[in-house]
Amino acid sequence: MNQPEFRLDGRLEADTHFLLDAPLCRIGLMDDSRFPWLILVPRVPNVREWPDLSTPDQLQLQAEINAAARALQQAFPHGQKLNIAALGNVVPQLHIHVILRHDGDAAWPAPVWNSGQRQPYDDAEAADVLDLLNTALLKNFSD
Amino acid sequence: MNQPEFRLDGRLEADTHFLLDAPLCRIGLMDDSRFPWLILVPRVPNVREWPDLSTPDQLQLQAEINAAARALQQAFPHGQKLNIAALGNVVPQLHIHVILRHDGDAAWPAPVWNSGQRQPYDDAEAADVLDLLNTALLKNFSD
Repeated sequence: MNQPEFRLDGRLEADTHFLLDAPLCRIGLMDDSRFPWLILVPRVPNVREWPDLSTPDQLQLQAEINAAARALQQAFPHGQKLNIAALGNVVPQLHIHVILRHDGDAAWPAPVWNSGQRQPYDDAEAADVLDLLNTALLKNFSD
Repeated sequence: MNQPEFRLDGRLEADTHFLLDAPLCRIGLMDDSRFPWLILVPRVPNVREWPDLSTPDQLQLQAEINAAARALQQAFPHGQKLNIAALGNVVPQLHIHVILRHDGDAAWPAPVWNSGQRQPYDDAEAADVLDLLNTALLKNFSD
């Protein structure tokens, strides 16, 4: 029997800019310039819930969340608070939000979900932020 | 020098019913009868961010999130989706929300935060739910 393949959910693909494939997760930048916001999707087929990941995958996910969080903090030094969440009420494919918040951002202190209109990056902004985050992520993944 | 002591933030204490002290976390039931909603607070002083926990504490937190999630799923078999989140924009003491959601609950499919008025349990309901969850948590912590 063939192994089922990992396929990124179409809505996650449409909403993110690809950043990198870490050992477990595909990491993307949410296309919302209001918040430094990463999405980590474990490349494990048919998993909806974090506790359903195997123990080794949970360990690796924790390491990748740490690296993603550090990368955001280094790339955006005015950030004050991490928000880390797996919700998935709309898109059931397991994905973890890692978002850096600060007092005065577009939703503060409310959560980012259902807080006004998403503001897509323009091309130049997206290129700059992707470059900044790629550098920071690679640094944290090589540590 | 004395070790700083763990003290549960007053707002978390006011908003929850105490359930149990697991090896790492104090676990409480959020006093909102609209959702089966646990709050896990690592008993580590002065930690605001999940990635700032030590590696052993992160491992233990993961195990306790798994146990809390399983307990909710067993106690409320109509649940369909876990929401797991560390936000802390208002209460900075690190605390993890583990919530069981279902299609048609009071906020579905939106996140629970900022979704209408909290509905505190009445005394009889609280006693029943605490009893149900204590049994389920103890079972999952002894596995």
